[in-house]
Amino acid sequence: MLKTRLQSLALVALLGVTGTLSAAEATKPGYDRHARGMAALSTITGDGAGKMVESLRDVAPELSDWVIDFGYGDVVSRPELSLHTRELATVAALTALGNAQPQLKSHIKGALNAGCTPREIVEVIMQMAVYAGFPAAINGILAAKEVFAERGVKVEH
Amino acid sequence: MLKTRLQSLALVALLGVTGTLSAAEATKPGYDRHARGMAALSTITGDGAGKMVESLRDVAPELSDWVIDFGYGDVVSRPELSLHTRELATVAALTALGNAQPQLKSHIKGALNAGCTPREIVEVIMQMAVYAGFPAAINGILAAKEVFAERGVKVEH
Amino acid sequence: MLKTRLQSLALVALLGVTGTLSAAEATKPGYDRHARGMAALSTITGDGAGKMVESLRDVAPELSDWVIDFGYGDVVSRPELSLHTRELATVAALTALGNAQPQLKSHIKGALNAGCTPREIVEVIMQMAVYAGFPAAINGILAAKEVFAERGVKVEH
Amino acid sequence: MLKTRLQSLALVALLGVTGTLSAAEATKPGYDRHARGMAALSTITGDGAGKMVESLRDVAPELSDWVIDFGYGDVVSRPELSLHTRELATVAALTALGNAQPQLKSHIKGALNAGCTPREIVEVIMQMAVYAGFPAAINGILAAKEVFAERGVKVEH
Amino acid sequence: MLKTRLQSLALVALLGVTGTLSAAEATKPGYDRHARGMAALSTITGDGAGKMVESLRDVAPELSDWVIDFGYGDVVSRPELSLHTRELATVAALTALGNAQPQLKSHIKGALNAGCTPREIVEVIMQMAVYAGFPAAINGILAAKEVFAERGVKVEH
Amino acid sequence: MLKTRLQSLALVALLGVTGTLSAAEATKPGYDRHARGMAALSTITGDGAGKMVESLRDVAPELSDWVIDFGYGDVVSRPELSLHTRELATVAALTALGNAQPQLKSHIKGALNAGCTPREIVEVIMQMAVYAGFPAAINGILAAKEVFAERGVKVEH
Repeated sequence: MLKTRLQSLALVALLGVTGTLSAAEATKPGYDRHARGMAALSTITGDGAGKMVESLRDVAPELSDWVIDFGYGDVVSRPELSLHTRELATVAALTALGNAQPQLKSHIKGALNAGCTPREIVEVIMQMAVYAGFPAAINGILAAKEVFAERGVKVEH
Repeated sequence: MLKTRLQSLALVALLGVTGTLSAAEATKPGYDRHARGMAALSTITGDGAGKMVESLRDVAPELSDWVIDFGYGDVVSRPELSLHTRELATVAALTALGNAQPQLKSHIKGALNAGCTPREIVEVIMQMAVYAGFPAAINGILAAKEVFAERGVKVEH
Repeated sequence: MLKTRLQSLALVALLGVTGTLSAAEATKPGYDRHARGMAALSTITGDGAGKMVESLRDVAPELSDWVIDFGYGDVVSRPELSLHTRELATVAALTALGNAQPQLKSHIKGALNAGCTPREIVEVIMQMAVYAGFPAAINGILAAKEVFAERGVKVEH
Repeated sequence: MLKTRLQSLALVALLGVTGTLSAAEATKPGYDRHARGMAALSTITGDGAGKMVESLRDVAPELSDWVIDFGYGDVVSRPELSLHTRELATVAALTALGNAQPQLKSHIKGALNAGCTPREIVEVIMQMAVYAGFPAAINGILAAKEVFAERGVKVEH
Repeated sequence: MLKTRLQSLALVALLGVTGTLSAAEATKPGYDRHARGMAALSTITGDGAGKMVESLRDVAPELSDWVIDFGYGDVVSRPELSLHTRELATVAALTALGNAQPQLKSHIKGALNAGCTPREIVEVIMQMAVYAGFPAAINGILAAKEVFAERGVKVEH
Repeated sequence: MLKTRLQSLALVALLGVTGTLSAAEATKPGYDRHARGMAALSTITGDGAGKMVESLRDVAPELSDWVIDFGYGDVVSRPELSLHTRELATVAALTALGNAQPQLKSHIKGALNAGCTPREIVEVIMQMAVYAGFPAAINGILAAKEVFAERGVKVEH
């Protein structure tokens, strides 16, 4: 647990203030897709590979690997956009789709871990009322409410 | 045309560098929902109320009003999040939903008008491959390709 | 209850003014699923089996039959709800789903053929802004605008 | 509780037999969006602002306001269509979308509160088997079954 | 329980090695839609009409009948494609839609009952990461994990 | 053109009768993700990398690479399921989603290229009427009708 925490902090330090990998880090020889994916995933989940990814491992270990290597290693860790913006975009998309509540909650946590404020998260979710309707936005806010309560964070008004 | 351009520039100036209304502007007496909505919509479309909103007016004028007053006046113009981030979130959501291509194209234009770079737009759309699948991301990129060609902008690599 | 039954019977005359089959018609021996389906489909399309259903026949004749026998014969022609209400419900659902524009246009025509006013159709579509977001509602209104233009009908304000 | 009940009854009386606000009521000076929204929402929920809307208030009070002012005040309370028809259209759309079960249950209750019979609600949900597939229709019926059990209502056959 | 098991085994025997009805069986006079549907449904659920279909009967008996007569009698039991392939296609579609988890679990069981291996089911679900995104695939695998645990089956690696 | 044709034929030969890569081929050192992806993609499109993937290259070359390396190299070319079954699963999913018609048409062609019969493709699409509704199935059949006409293939009845 401590180890995971330290590892996570080290990765956060690696990812730095803006929450992106430097282009140099991300492309240097030997810094491979898997390591890059683990770094990004760990920052987002705050607990290493994440419980959800781990829970896939006995039935579909390839899917776990694809999440890490492709999802986080190839895509999410690209330095051209900050993790901060990426997590807000993911929260927007999952709120709008409305059919993946466990992942929406994970990425609301991930947005907090990437340095988004509760206010920013709430704004993005509320905006989805315009693009995907009120039920989607309401269910998104209820997911955020649960995450904020677990984490003890408040939305400043 | 010139008038629209000037009006748009004036509104951009009003909205300022960060693309947000100041809280003071947005809430001062007499600066109402409709004016606030028109300012935000005009910045995003670059052509006043936007052709799509206008095209609704003879059949469903209330819907035009709701887009402006509620969608842009109440929601999108809130100063708690920049137009820049809001447009990226909207592009993410519409790419993921995949069932509103005309609006996706409008908001790719809107993202450019709000100061997003083509690179940021492409990154957000590509990221949707992870959260909504490749067909959604591919159709999003093809929409962006059309908009970029119309606007003569290039994605820097 | 009796009143409803009588009303339903009165609404008869093989689809008649209100566009429902009488319970008596619908259940009498020999009045089979296919005939009942054709009657309902013909009222809704205004052109017999409908061009879309016909266009399926060479590749997937079973699907044509299922549309008629199951979709219209078993479900849509049930006398417990008027065709008028059924078509508004279908317009609502297809507007909200946003991924079947040809069918949405067919059912906007169908709603007119079942006696719905353009105003009722517009109200139901606009309401979807609340439940499925503005892009869905806007694309629904644009579909209605096309149908109303083809049919030369006006929305009274 | 009693107060809420009386308020709700008073609002039902105001909304009258057809479940619509009279055009005169709805547009008279001083009868504003919020009051109109509260009247419609209260009729639909049967318990004032509704538990779901209230539950948003600490995290996203603006979203609560938008539901009431825009969703119910601007859209759902429009007198051009009865609440009865509006609720059936909403039940159709939410059944078809299939990704907002809490809201579907709320609107099945709302449909009962607006005077729809259980039979009408069941017919609209079953019809969605044709337009959105059997899983959507089955999950809609299971939601209705729960609501009908809570309310002690029966579907007449 | 034993009776159900035997009945199920008898139906499996009737449906034969490939899991399809012979064209002769399926079309012979007197072998009607309902019987054909019950045979296919029973093979897929392994428990006669299936708990879900039964649970609809008091509120919406027509929907139960349509599932059996149309869904299984007209469509799923067609001999032109094996039940094995049909169940994999259904698992693919329900994973991609992501809004009908109870039905997805039923059809993962159904796929096992139709003779699909756990490996084939996992492969089809994982493939949906490409076409519908990772959240859909992950939620599909978690559904499979639950079903495999209940049934005591393992995925061979 | 000829070169592409020959390359494609060579790859079809490599993929062999069952349309799968042998496990030995797929995992031998030096046979990398990209080559494996190109082999699978080429078999499915029948024209090398496919026009759609190529059309992404100037705006989003990374997305092209991900389609080939991840989508086809990691996922679709896995030998645990035949390309034949994979393409039917993809056709099922894209028909059900109903929001990616260009990709649906590509994969109907891909299913033919992987050795599926027009009858199998039609059966899978028609089955989606049960799981995703008639509009989805009808639009799927109309896509198949276009592809079959282009390719001059007939559905045997």
